[in-house]
Amino acid sequence: MKKYSVILLVFLTFFGSFCSAQTAQATIIEDFKPSTVNQPGQQYPQVNSQGYARFKISAPEAKSVVVSLGLGGAKGGTVLTKAENGNWTGTTAGPMDEGFHYYHATVDGGVFNDPGALNFYGSTRWESGIEISAHDQDFYALKNVPHGHVQQILFPSKSTNTSRRAYVYTPPSYSREQSKRFPVLYLQHGWGEDETAWSNQGRVNLIMDNLIAEGKIKPFLIVMTYGMTNEIKWGGMASFKIEPFQTVLVDELIPYVDANFRTLANQPNRAMAGLSMGGMETHTITLNKPDVFSQYALLSGGIYTPEEIKDRSKVKLIFISCGSRENPDRVQTAIKGLKEAGFNAVSYVSDQTGHEFQTWRRSIKELAPLLFKD
Amino acid sequence: MKKYSVILLVFLTFFGSFCSAQTAQATIIEDFKPSTVNQPGQQYPQVNSQGYARFKISAPEAKSVVVSLGLGGAKGGTVLTKAENGNWTGTTAGPMDEGFHYYHATVDGGVFNDPGALNFYGSTRWESGIEISAHDQDFYALKNVPHGHVQQILFPSKSTNTSRRAYVYTPPSYSREQSKRFPVLYLQHGWGEDETAWSNQGRVNLIMDNLIAEGKIKPFLIVMTYGMTNEIKWGGMASFKIEPFQTVLVDELIPYVDANFRTLANQPNRAMAGLSMGGMETHTITLNKPDVFSQYALLSGGIYTPEEIKDRSKVKLIFISCGSRENPDRVQTAIKGLKEAGFNAVSYVSDQTGHEFQTWRRSIKELAPLLFKD
Repeated sequence: MKKYSVILLVFLTFFGSFCSAQTAQATIIEDFKPSTVNQPGQQYPQVNSQGYARFKISAPEAKSVVVSLGLGGAKGGTVLTKAENGNWTGTTAGPMDEGFHYYHATVDGGVFNDPGALNFYGSTRWESGIEISAHDQDFYALKNVPHGHVQQILFPSKSTNTSRRAYVYTPPSYSREQSKRFPVLYLQHGWGEDETAWSNQGRVNLIMDNLIAEGKIKPFLIVMTYGMTNEIKWGGMASFKIEPFQTVLVDELIPYVDANFRTLANQPNRAMAGLSMGGMETHTITLNKPDVFSQYALLSGGIYTPEEIKDRSKVKLIFISCGSRENPDRVQTAIKGLKEAGFNAVSYVSDQTGHEFQTWRRSIKELAPLLFKD
Repeated sequence: MKKYSVILLVFLTFFGSFCSAQTAQATIIEDFKPSTVNQPGQQYPQVNSQGYARFKISAPEAKSVVVSLGLGGAKGGTVLTKAENGNWTGTTAGPMDEGFHYYHATVDGGVFNDPGALNFYGSTRWESGIEISAHDQDFYALKNVPHGHVQQILFPSKSTNTSRRAYVYTPPSYSREQSKRFPVLYLQHGWGEDETAWSNQGRVNLIMDNLIAEGKIKPFLIVMTYGMTNEIKWGGMASFKIEPFQTVLVDELIPYVDANFRTLANQPNRAMAGLSMGGMETHTITLNKPDVFSQYALLSGGIYTPEEIKDRSKVKLIFISCGSRENPDRVQTAIKGLKEAGFNAVSYVSDQTGHEFQTWRRSIKELAPLLFKD
């Protein structure tokens, strides 16, 4: 119980830096372009080269429209003002951090999504999303390279008495080399998200396609499923029990994947990673099941200590990362301790990002080349 | 051009019956339950056993909230009334047709989605969706049977200079019988929808899984891609050109599918079907490419006449369907003419439904057993 309370505290600390941004700049450059995750044909929201976001929402009879994105995080946001044509517009008070952000609009006290933006599952609801152009966005761009597939599977789960959904990324060579078998990374989303997060807002399939095209990694499968088998509310994390999800993952999903995909179905070829709450799940399940996974990664989701690991010979890699706006010292101290204890341990800190998907996109890019090395 | 104008007229006639419903009943039975396509944990919208829909949307400071669903179609809708707690509630004036409906909420003159409902791509935007319980909903229910996978693919398209997205349904046996090859149905969405429509609102993967589990059909693959390569607006259909999409489908997608999936890559094992605008595309492309497809299906999407078909020996099946609230006489007259001319032609009319997905779900259920017969 104590362990979870500590982790909960870490989460809250992380969220304190949610949507933090640089000091407001005086001059806004008027080179705004539609966000790359707008709905088809929609001109707003827009983003400029400095990272400012601009919104335009039509609600001619409304009294107030406030967008949750802006300086000051979720509690602040950007208050829009109404033009004569009924459109409410506004620009963030400063540049936002690079990468993907969730947001919503509060219209006359009701919470709605921005009709211009695509929706992404976060905070246990489908939220509007926006992309702030990043200096390194090339690594998750859709390029003219061979693309892997993202398969929606429905696997039988006796323990929860239903068919559960997961997504499986198969690399480009999977469908062409019909006799080859592949290692598998099990990759978990964060609190309030679901199994769609890593491919939708995480763009993990494109990150993999690009790394494979550049010859930087050995191709592997990625399996993503829903990790919130408990009803988890904020503050209720202390009562979170890992067993229901561990059963789904280890006793139901893994056997299904090994039966239906050409996997290398053994511990040396199986890794687990997760972001935020998914890191907590990864931490607990890998320690509980040392014969199932050999490589562990926590992305803004806590740390390992050498004392926790019973049989050190079974751990091939420990990767721990976070954003520079989170708690990088804690990550780096933990890795130092693990290295001193003889583990193959690697840390990564994403520059100028917080508890958001840009940190996790970059983390996966750093992690992937380290996995499944012979 | 004339042909397209006629089809446009048919579409408009269809849309006149959009959301039509039975005569309003005096007594509303208070057995409302959350719609099955609500966002996780959301209690509203709700549906009762008679097919009434009830909405609850929070917007404490709003002046008016109107939901587009209700008697009288898109122009009418259901006007919600505000309670003291800031929730706007209302019930449709009568029962809705069985099955899936798109809708949105107009809040103080702005168009938003209902925060309680999942979103589905239709009318060129992500709209709220609701399921009215149907007497025959068992055929598209998620059951404890083996499930096929739905794969997102990104295939290279030289003609449009991008990677284009499609979804491929593979039956349960596809991943288990690694040497078997399968026939393929190319299946198109309607105007304003996209490649997500058939598996999201159409539930075509579950319809297939259930038919296969019951031994009613020979398993086959279904490929669904985006058919609106032109910018198509209402009224602009007359200027629609089929060539750009035909090139994507026939010269780019089919070769990719045949190279990356274990298909039976020949005309006898390839079918094309489409709903509404997708029917128009199916009609034109099958007639242009008689050596590519052998089985044709139009779902609320026009008809074939015997005179249009040049080489009758190449056509193994023509299937034409619509809802009873559309123009069933036209469909049945067309099938009569095709049969008299010696074609293997089958009609289907969905009882008490209009130009909506319940018609198309039922149509696919009727079509699937007729396809790829030896």
